[in-house]
Amino acid sequence: MFDLLLKGSVVLPDRIIEDGWVAVRGERIGAIGTGEAPQATKMIDAGTDWIIPGIVDGQTHATSYKGLPGFEATSQSALAGGITTMVDMPYDNPDPLNTLERFDAKVQAVHDYSHCDVALYGTVAPGQGTDLMQPLADRGICAFKLSLIESHPVRFPRIPADEILDILTASVPTGLPVGLHNEDQEIVRAMIERHKAQGLTRPEHNETSRPEVAELSATAQFMELGAATGAHVHIVHLSSPRGLQMIAEYAARGVRATGELCVHYLHFDAARDIERLGARMKVSPPIRSGMIEDLWQACEDGLPALISSDHSSWPIDNKLAASIFDAGAGIPGLETLGPSFYTDAAERYGEEGAVRRLVDYMCLKPAEFFGLAPRKGAIAAGADADLVVLKRGPKPFDASQTRDGLNWSPYDGETFTASVATTVRRGEIAWDGAQILSTAGSGAFIPRN
Amino acid sequence: MFDLLLKGSVVLPDRIIEDGWVAVRGERIGAIGTGEAPQATKMIDAGTDWIIPGIVDGQTHATSYKGLPGFEATSQSALAGGITTMVDMPYDNPDPLNTLERFDAKVQAVHDYSHCDVALYGTVAPGQGTDLMQPLADRGICAFKLSLIESHPVRFPRIPADEILDILTASVPTGLPVGLHNEDQEIVRAMIERHKAQGLTRPEHNETSRPEVAELSATAQFMELGAATGAHVHIVHLSSPRGLQMIAEYAARGVRATGELCVHYLHFDAARDIERLGARMKVSPPIRSGMIEDLWQACEDGLPALISSDHSSWPIDNKLAASIFDAGAGIPGLETLGPSFYTDAAERYGEEGAVRRLVDYMCLKPAEFFGLAPRKGAIAAGADADLVVLKRGPKPFDASQTRDGLNWSPYDGETFTASVATTVRRGEIAWDGAQILSTAGSGAFIPRN
Amino acid sequence: MFDLLLKGSVVLPDRIIEDGWVAVRGERIGAIGTGEAPQATKMIDAGTDWIIPGIVDGQTHATSYKGLPGFEATSQSALAGGITTMVDMPYDNPDPLNTLERFDAKVQAVHDYSHCDVALYGTVAPGQGTDLMQPLADRGICAFKLSLIESHPVRFPRIPADEILDILTASVPTGLPVGLHNEDQEIVRAMIERHKAQGLTRPEHNETSRPEVAELSATAQFMELGAATGAHVHIVHLSSPRGLQMIAEYAARGVRATGELCVHYLHFDAARDIERLGARMKVSPPIRSGMIEDLWQACEDGLPALISSDHSSWPIDNKLAASIFDAGAGIPGLETLGPSFYTDAAERYGEEGAVRRLVDYMCLKPAEFFGLAPRKGAIAAGADADLVVLKRGPKPFDASQTRDGLNWSPYDGETFTASVATTVRRGEIAWDGAQILSTAGSGAFIPRN
Amino acid sequence: MFDLLLKGSVVLPDRIIEDGWVAVRGERIGAIGTGEAPQATKMIDAGTDWIIPGIVDGQTHATSYKGLPGFEATSQSALAGGITTMVDMPYDNPDPLNTLERFDAKVQAVHDYSHCDVALYGTVAPGQGTDLMQPLADRGICAFKLSLIESHPVRFPRIPADEILDILTASVPTGLPVGLHNEDQEIVRAMIERHKAQGLTRPEHNETSRPEVAELSATAQFMELGAATGAHVHIVHLSSPRGLQMIAEYAARGVRATGELCVHYLHFDAARDIERLGARMKVSPPIRSGMIEDLWQACEDGLPALISSDHSSWPIDNKLAASIFDAGAGIPGLETLGPSFYTDAAERYGEEGAVRRLVDYMCLKPAEFFGLAPRKGAIAAGADADLVVLKRGPKPFDASQTRDGLNWSPYDGETFTASVATTVRRGEIAWDGAQILSTAGSGAFIPRN
Ligand SMILES: [Zn+2]
Ligand SMILES: [Zn+2]
Ligand SMILES: [Zn+2]
Ligand SMILES: [Zn+2]
Ligand SMILES: [Zn+2]
Ligand SMILES: [Zn+2]
Ligand SMILES: [Zn+2]
Ligand SMILES: [Zn+2]
Repeated sequence: MFDLLLKGSVVLPDRIIEDGWVAVRGERIGAIGTGEAPQATKMIDAGTDWIIPGIVDGQTHATSYKGLPGFEATSQSALAGGITTMVDMPYDNPDPLNTLERFDAKVQAVHDYSHCDVALYGTVAPGQGTDLMQPLADRGICAFKLSLIESHPVRFPRIPADEILDILTASVPTGLPVGLHNEDQEIVRAMIERHKAQGLTRPEHNETSRPEVAELSATAQFMELGAATGAHVHIVHLSSPRGLQMIAEYAARGVRATGELCVHYLHFDAARDIERLGARMKVSPPIRSGMIEDLWQACEDGLPALISSDHSSWPIDNKLAASIFDAGAGIPGLETLGPSFYTDAAERYGEEGAVRRLVDYMCLKPAEFFGLAPRKGAIAAGADADLVVLKRGPKPFDASQTRDGLNWSPYDGETFTASVATTVRRGEIAWDGAQILSTAGSGAFIPRN
Repeated sequence: MFDLLLKGSVVLPDRIIEDGWVAVRGERIGAIGTGEAPQATKMIDAGTDWIIPGIVDGQTHATSYKGLPGFEATSQSALAGGITTMVDMPYDNPDPLNTLERFDAKVQAVHDYSHCDVALYGTVAPGQGTDLMQPLADRGICAFKLSLIESHPVRFPRIPADEILDILTASVPTGLPVGLHNEDQEIVRAMIERHKAQGLTRPEHNETSRPEVAELSATAQFMELGAATGAHVHIVHLSSPRGLQMIAEYAARGVRATGELCVHYLHFDAARDIERLGARMKVSPPIRSGMIEDLWQACEDGLPALISSDHSSWPIDNKLAASIFDAGAGIPGLETLGPSFYTDAAERYGEEGAVRRLVDYMCLKPAEFFGLAPRKGAIAAGADADLVVLKRGPKPFDASQTRDGLNWSPYDGETFTASVATTVRRGEIAWDGAQILSTAGSGAFIPRN
Repeated sequence: MFDLLLKGSVVLPDRIIEDGWVAVRGERIGAIGTGEAPQATKMIDAGTDWIIPGIVDGQTHATSYKGLPGFEATSQSALAGGITTMVDMPYDNPDPLNTLERFDAKVQAVHDYSHCDVALYGTVAPGQGTDLMQPLADRGICAFKLSLIESHPVRFPRIPADEILDILTASVPTGLPVGLHNEDQEIVRAMIERHKAQGLTRPEHNETSRPEVAELSATAQFMELGAATGAHVHIVHLSSPRGLQMIAEYAARGVRATGELCVHYLHFDAARDIERLGARMKVSPPIRSGMIEDLWQACEDGLPALISSDHSSWPIDNKLAASIFDAGAGIPGLETLGPSFYTDAAERYGEEGAVRRLVDYMCLKPAEFFGLAPRKGAIAAGADADLVVLKRGPKPFDASQTRDGLNWSPYDGETFTASVATTVRRGEIAWDGAQILSTAGSGAFIPRN
Repeated sequence: MFDLLLKGSVVLPDRIIEDGWVAVRGERIGAIGTGEAPQATKMIDAGTDWIIPGIVDGQTHATSYKGLPGFEATSQSALAGGITTMVDMPYDNPDPLNTLERFDAKVQAVHDYSHCDVALYGTVAPGQGTDLMQPLADRGICAFKLSLIESHPVRFPRIPADEILDILTASVPTGLPVGLHNEDQEIVRAMIERHKAQGLTRPEHNETSRPEVAELSATAQFMELGAATGAHVHIVHLSSPRGLQMIAEYAARGVRATGELCVHYLHFDAARDIERLGARMKVSPPIRSGMIEDLWQACEDGLPALISSDHSSWPIDNKLAASIFDAGAGIPGLETLGPSFYTDAAERYGEEGAVRRLVDYMCLKPAEFFGLAPRKGAIAAGADADLVVLKRGPKPFDASQTRDGLNWSPYDGETFTASVATTVRRGEIAWDGAQILSTAGSGAFIPRN
């Protein structure tokens, strides 16, 4: 007698079982089968809809605006988006996760507020030294994050190149990747000042003020620091194919180099969308013009290590500024991550092609990357029972109905060709397509293994 | 209520479930799980031994000596070696599989004699033309085989280069790979004549009379023919790393090029073993000296498309000749394929590393390559219930106990670190580690899908 | 007091001296200068016309038709074409140059008949063994030539692959390149038979009966034989860019591999010219369709080792056959080699670009390649006084006026943008733009140094 | 009647004439020959010693210490070192060459003070804008120079990345290369501070405080800026093979990227020499340990665009500091450039190999690179009569006898295997092996052509 049974088209790591089922015992998957199914207390029959693993979002900023209580709304939004594990960034409000106390507080906040499971990035503040890196790794953070541009002096500071060298060196024994926000501060700041001086402050000037070379130059610099230290250097967002290619070339030379793509770079195009969306599509690095098809090709070539949302919890007020340079960067994305990717991929590769790629880039790869496998990322006997019913068929996306407490989105009004009908998190039906059924604090901290 | 349940360390495509089980209903896998297992009529508890998919041997010569009845003993040997599907070569005695009548007769022979499942290569005789290639493909053969050297004028002829061009061209719409026995006839025959003329007829002269360049030259020629036609060109056995590298280079240039390794090239070394084994290790292309470590590295680099046995059904009498050039080429290999690979791999990568690589190169890859997936090659719900218990621990190999009707082997007397304790073929326990339990004709022809 | 002074735009290896002069003392260049010139017995003032080194034609068949006396007319044609050194192929009528006697006879014939200097290829007959290779090298032949297709059983035989291996092995201590006529006999012969059987015997069927793959397959085979032996393997004519690319790839892997281009592949196009020229443009490998631009690009990329004429001394009767397969292959080319290249290059790179490339590919490179430098190939103090005045300006080409004793050409009626106004061979004015002034036997055998 | 005749082993671009001569008329080479030589007013018979072109030193800092009058001593030292053209860097004392006035003043200073010919780099000051770049190019500067590290706030400032982008963009229409002093300021300054804080101020700490990664990181950043703009990006000194390799990889991807080597990196080794030489071998980037053999191999692979001295005019007092961080960077090098390279190369490649490589890397290549060919860099009729007699045979180097006004050198006391016996600058015997015979102001400014 199992506790829960899901039936449908089950998407396994290497195949899809059309007439399949997944049986849950407690928090784990107990069995996977086809044909006649075992008894279970509860049963969800998804018919021909997809049953996929819970999505692992490799880049969430849950607590950068509201602080640690930000987990509450953000984690509900995650579940509504089919995300059962968020990998949360360390640039929290008011202080980043760079000490054991901050680590403990954040883990406590997960236990207090979160509806979904959470893995944690750590960071190191300028001048702090590297002594806490190993202790943080020992407690289970899954990666470190740094930036070459200052977004906020305390929360999101720039780390000088010499300290990055130290941090990379210290990361080697931890085995953890070190992620980078890859923009050259000198170029970006100067360019913005020039734009302002010339009164060029409209939304389209965000792209021109943060040129691709600012991103590539910072990326190349970080790759060289990685090459010198033997560290695993990871770029957390590349807005253009050239960066992914550069990383592949460093990797081919033996550098432990990886790069991440965010789903909005695969969907929006500045030339096409900036007039309509304005600051609503401002992210950093910016969404550029004419990149979409080459980025999809890069995915086909296997270049990104994973694809994430880069969800940021900024209220819409943060975007309403006369100058694009006064508008905040970052967009909500948890409830659109899977549906956006699926919709765009289905146009190119069909629905089965779409769901396979979604599971590959958003479940299997991030779970492996952040050391959360084999618990997370795949439907497999013994794994955590994180399961999503992805319902096939058109569904308009209404940002006013999102659970993130922000209720706006650049995707508002678009129609996706799949929607998240059910989310099971460690055996519990946490989202039924209309309601959050879980309670705050039911989420768990997942240490890197 | 299932028909059969196996418990043990289940080796799935992407992970190993330590406390796992596989439940069989009829001929198919019904469920895979961990922890408490469902009821079943029969149960095999393998403890901590490995449960792997039935091996798919990508190159068997079951019927080249005794003709089609040769399936009977050969297929029993396969089961005793954990092989549930043989991909049988077309060079049958007395006539090769190059017509629909021969195809029908061979399928009938599978149904009459075979204990294991069988997929079939086809071929084309010199001067025959290509008209039957598409009909043979439609009936389900999985590949075509050709040779650039004549081993027998009817059974195993050389195909002239112009006809190979025609055959490759005709293969493109079938989508099937065209395999090649890759030796340059002119070089090999002349070298043998020279050796004979000088009285150099000892076992070690097999290697010197069939130099690596004879193999590489034929391989390069075939690659160019492939490049000109767009066909999938496959080399069925490479005895040295350079050939695998050449194929990778052609593939990188867009040619549909693949190459296969046979397990004996990974185990024997001419310089070390020829005095002890003599003609017992004569195969073509020959086992060379000093290749083993580079071939293992080539496997780590992912160069071979699959690893096979190249089992040949020659009686030992065929080997007992005063001159190495009068001894037949080919060795039995079905019962040593898995154990030899596992033993050698475990020395290099540990037991878990060994079983992962075995499943990758001998189950997943050949099933995919020959179009037998998703039925064959993986433990997955809905797949054929082809399952093997691979028992851990030393076991001496005694060739006199083999089921192949030949009862000799170059491996005789070696000790392997794993043995085939049980073989389940489509739900039936066909081998229990001591006895064949299946009946002749219980094997099936498996068409390429 | 010098013997001869030439004034003009002197083309040196690294620069052009606009107001230059070259002063000759005896058979050698005594001085090169600019401005005021020294006294000399004779003076040729070329004004702004080019003064270039005598061309070294890397592939001439002077004696394949008329036998050794063929040198007389052929060498006069060479001088009229600005060629002061022919590298003559060994496939002489009636016997090839494969013995010391034949070598001595051919050197004697140079001294008896030739007006220009001559370097000599040697060859090895099937079954002959390699004993004479070193003695021939010691006497000064500059390369060996082989074929993978039989053109004539005695003069131009196919060498079996095993003997090629022996020859390549034996070539290594000589340091000499081994050239190959690169067509797969089996493919070409079968294709021709098929064409004949279908009545496809028009000129355009020469291209289809000798497909590119026949050439590439033979080339790849020869490269592998080269790789196995360490020999310098040279392809004497490639009709398409892919072959040059393949050679570059082998060279990048450390094989001593080179390839040669003939000027007609850079000028004619089968699709465009075959109807007009018919058998008049039949060469082997055939001139193909659509190759010209990519071949020029290959020259820009530095892929050919040299560019030659492949001049063949066939009378036009040899071409007048009802079937293209009965027409002889080979065309006269000594008097068009330089002008054709110059004209086509000038269209692409201007006149200065043209003369630089001509000197590079037809003087410097072949002299270096065949071991004739520093005597031949460059205007330099101390070098042989082989000098050509290349007159700028249009000149129609009239094949009836050629000195080769053949008086036909596929170029007949074309207008070149440069012409050979004077040829000085070792200090002697041998051609004055209208008359041959040298005497038979004034040419010398030039041994490889 | 020529004005001057030199006899000896004349090193031409493509060959050496053993019994050669060079005849000078006025400032130009009038003729080059072998054997009987023409009449001349003056004659120098070098016997079997080498006659090479005047060396073009691609990187001299003549005026960074004493200001423009620094040309006087520096240019005499150049002539004594066989250098007839210095390419002078723009970081002059007190102001760099970044305006037309400074350009005019520097050209005037050449005419007032210099004994040798001079080509000029220009630069752009921080915040200056790019308006003067084209005018400076029009007046004949041959390249621009920038730095990513500040050595002096006015003379040798750091240029911010955004301004480098502007400068590179503006350089494209000028066609000029933009050179970079390639050290990351942030890393180097922080490292030095750390060393000081720990009391690590001995000579060996120069290497550890300026790690290779500081150089590679700045190099990669500059390459990316070059890739984004299409500019010719040139690294003026690479201390390790990896940087040269990186540049080759960017060049292979179509970036106009080049790199320069300085001769001291080919001669000194920090681990071996630092204790003996201390601050006397301090240059930036530093001479590292264990690089020499790989750098010579990089030269064999053709990676450097040229090899220069990076001569700096610092008095020895500048080196005499208790802390290595208080010692100035830069060493005199004009009189050791050629002899050091020749000596080291002769050990590896013999004397003829050495002189060929010297002429290639120090005459031909820099003249071509800086647009000074065909006047400079080669012995050719019509070229400037810049000629050097390089005397073969051992000669101890005594720094107290140098003409640079500094009279110290890290090479002091070493024995070279060749010495500069005569230097002819535009037809004038300017150095006779013991005395400077030219007058101040006899040197000329050589504009890029
Ligand atoms: Zn970021
Ligand atoms: Zn982010
Ligand atoms: Zn075979
Ligand atoms: Zn076989
Ligand atoms: Zn030929
Ligand atoms: Zn020829
Ligand atoms: Zn510098
Ligand atoms: Zn410098």
